[in-house]
Amino acid sequence: MIDTLSNEDTICAISTPAGMGGIAVIRVSGADAITTVSRCWHGAALSDMKSHTAHLGQIIDPAADGSLLDEVVLTLFRAPHSFTGEDVIEISCHGSRWIQQELVNLLIRCGCRAATGGEFTRRAFSNGRLDLSQAEAVADVIASSSRASHRIAMSQMRGDFSRELSGLREQLLHFVSLMELELDFSEEEVEFADRSHLITLAEQIQGVVTRLTESFAVGNAIKNGLPVAIVGETNAGKSTLLNYLLHDDRALVSDIHGTTRDVIEDTITLGGTLFRFIDTAGIRDTTDRIEAMGIERTFSKMSEAQIVLWVIDGTTPVAAIEPLAARILPTVAPGSHLIAVINKADLITDTQHATLRQALTALLPDGTPTVNISAREHTNLNALQAELIHAAAIPEADANQVIVTNARHYQSLTHAGEAIARAIHGLRQGISGDFVSQDIRECMHYLGEITGEITPTHILTTIFQHFCIGK
Amino acid sequence: MIDTLSNEDTICAISTPAGMGGIAVIRVSGADAITTVSRCWHGAALSDMKSHTAHLGQIIDPAADGSLLDEVVLTLFRAPHSFTGEDVIEISCHGSRWIQQELVNLLIRCGCRAATGGEFTRRAFSNGRLDLSQAEAVADVIASSSRASHRIAMSQMRGDFSRELSGLREQLLHFVSLMELELDFSEEEVEFADRSHLITLAEQIQGVVTRLTESFAVGNAIKNGLPVAIVGETNAGKSTLLNYLLHDDRALVSDIHGTTRDVIEDTITLGGTLFRFIDTAGIRDTTDRIEAMGIERTFSKMSEAQIVLWVIDGTTPVAAIEPLAARILPTVAPGSHLIAVINKADLITDTQHATLRQALTALLPDGTPTVNISAREHTNLNALQAELIHAAAIPEADANQVIVTNARHYQSLTHAGEAIARAIHGLRQGISGDFVSQDIRECMHYLGEITGEITPTHILTTIFQHFCIGK
Repeated sequence: MIDTLSNEDTICAISTPAGMGGIAVIRVSGADAITTVSRCWHGAALSDMKSHTAHLGQIIDPAADGSLLDEVVLTLFRAPHSFTGEDVIEISCHGSRWIQQELVNLLIRCGCRAATGGEFTRRAFSNGRLDLSQAEAVADVIASSSRASHRIAMSQMRGDFSRELSGLREQLLHFVSLMELELDFSEEEVEFADRSHLITLAEQIQGVVTRLTESFAVGNAIKNGLPVAIVGETNAGKSTLLNYLLHDDRALVSDIHGTTRDVIEDTITLGGTLFRFIDTAGIRDTTDRIEAMGIERTFSKMSEAQIVLWVIDGTTPVAAIEPLAARILPTVAPGSHLIAVINKADLITDTQHATLRQALTALLPDGTPTVNISAREHTNLNALQAELIHAAAIPEADANQVIVTNARHYQSLTHAGEAIARAIHGLRQGISGDFVSQDIRECMHYLGEITGEITPTHILTTIFQHFCIGK
Repeated sequence: MIDTLSNEDTICAISTPAGMGGIAVIRVSGADAITTVSRCWHGAALSDMKSHTAHLGQIIDPAADGSLLDEVVLTLFRAPHSFTGEDVIEISCHGSRWIQQELVNLLIRCGCRAATGGEFTRRAFSNGRLDLSQAEAVADVIASSSRASHRIAMSQMRGDFSRELSGLREQLLHFVSLMELELDFSEEEVEFADRSHLITLAEQIQGVVTRLTESFAVGNAIKNGLPVAIVGETNAGKSTLLNYLLHDDRALVSDIHGTTRDVIEDTITLGGTLFRFIDTAGIRDTTDRIEAMGIERTFSKMSEAQIVLWVIDGTTPVAAIEPLAARILPTVAPGSHLIAVINKADLITDTQHATLRQALTALLPDGTPTVNISAREHTNLNALQAELIHAAAIPEADANQVIVTNARHYQSLTHAGEAIARAIHGLRQGISGDFVSQDIRECMHYLGEITGEITPTHILTTIFQHFCIGK
């Protein structure tokens, strides 16, 4: 089991994506990296190499009369100036599946152990190169598929979230020290801090924790896709529209990466935002293993899509619009964005369109954008996409703040929030300082879970097992 | 079109396999590589960097207020000490699809052009770093999926085939100079070379060309899989056996690379050799685009499998064996290996088995291996695999010789062989030296096509368009 993983042995894995390519990179990390790789390396002496230098040479199999496996470029990163903080060797070989596999087998025969998922990042964490939230962000950076999710993951990996948490911890330490100083002198009935001042301080902390917790709704939507419901009568053209939107995006991805079968069927990226289209017959089961828990929780919290596209058949008689609106509009949750889409523009006259639009304007909430399209003829779909992007825009104020995207962090923050709420309640009730202090310590404990200061091994194991091997 | 590709602009591409991974490598090559990458690089000054050094830094988007795209490791290889012979920069970034795609887009905005398939290798060829047969071997090295095909491709990439061809060219030049010297003095009726000596020399050359041409049968089988036919009555257990063999291999591959759907359904690698199982209802249509021509030609040349597995239902009455053998044995082509497989070992007694084996021994050619298995119970299948590997072994003598695996080379060698045959015929008929000399020059021309000395652009285009992008 991973729990018994040692940091003392030298690990190796293919770090580049699985499959065939021009080149592939095999990464080796550990105290014995140089000794181990030297056994199958024919080129400049590894022990004499400077850190951060690349060398052309050969990988040979010492057990098979030194037969040549491949000509490679080897780059050495000496401890502690490497990703893991250990000696790291990256071998850039020809990207055949066979060579990649044989090279890993050879390194294992030379004394390496095959790395488990995320073990390089786990070592970077163990060696203090990253805290836990930064280490988790490495996986998010790799998995991110939109500008927004990438931006948040990069910010977290670079430590913005850690700094926010460290700010909170400082405030909590200040708070708890005030409380405990008071306790030390409790027999003297001294009050070092005015209770109302303490309450204000605790409420400030609660404010930050609450903001972070609440940001998870946005963060999770950014990471897993902003939920969009396409509603409307059958035959209004919902499927044609959805197919067009999804197809359009997938074609783009294929152009660049070749056939990508594993794109999730119902999400698209527009203007750097990931949209997740929800089957209005009920929220589709997600096929995402990771964060499925998070999505479920969020979807149940939101209970409705953040954007509703009401697709209206343009040929619908005006008289039929009001009963339709009466059925559709109540399904739009408060705070969600509604976009009215008049479809089949190619089948109606300008006069019909004007009449329909007038009827709609009377029924729709003020400022509801209305777009006139033909899904079949692909008319004006850019305007619709622009409205989707506009509706999805994160307010500028939020964009510069830390956004929580990780279900584990959300859970810890929720617990931290409950603890601080108990502390505030205690202060208001005038209960003993040591109980309040206990709540504050509990709050700090939960925040420590996020950065990994007090995280037990089995939690670490769960976190890193979702990483890809080689990272 | 690729024909108008310039070697003057700076190209970029993702060089690692498509998809998500721990890291990915984007390669940039060209005279302006340093200037171009400097526009989006935040770190040590590229112009001051030594060749073959790696640097941690940031990729930023100069058009988006220098917003951070990724933290990367950049390695510089200065001309001419690089794969292409030009300045090459390799950017090792986080392996998200999004980052890879954005980084390529950013490099293009900074002045790079997206590389076409094989363009890096084509530049290495243009810049004299590799000859054409070596450049082609780069693609073979990447595509090779067995020890044998890998060994041949590596040998070709390292220039063994080129040296063999260069030896042939020297002999031909020696020959043609003897012929042409004679022509210069033709009015004096001098014969510098004894015609029979010339014939011997030409026959030696023909011998080498013939050996190379004939090696294509072996080479193509190694590259595309040694054809194995599983024959026998229906219900003898052919499908169970085939499924077991194929499944076994596929499971192995999956363990290492994750789900690999693109494994060709009917080939397996055993003991480092690729086997291609042929549907005995007729040779299956290959789905291989590349070399389909080569396979077709070879299969039609071979007309039969190189190994025939005759699967016999162990419960078959002994009396029924002789008529069966009469039907099966003639289908085994001369030179092919026959392996008799007595299946359903779990359903027969030792006595039944001994009787059956005795009957078979009387019918089968001497030395035919006979294996007793249960495909259903997976009994003794290792012994069968060992027999397959044994039957597939390339004689030691051939193993150290150059083996032709490329249909284009085979074609050029065939033409060269025809030219040398005409020259020999001419010498024997005593026809004029200038005609013979013309045939020898033609032979040299065809060999020159292989190394790329006289290869027209459209042929180069065809060759390199089969390469993956990024190599």
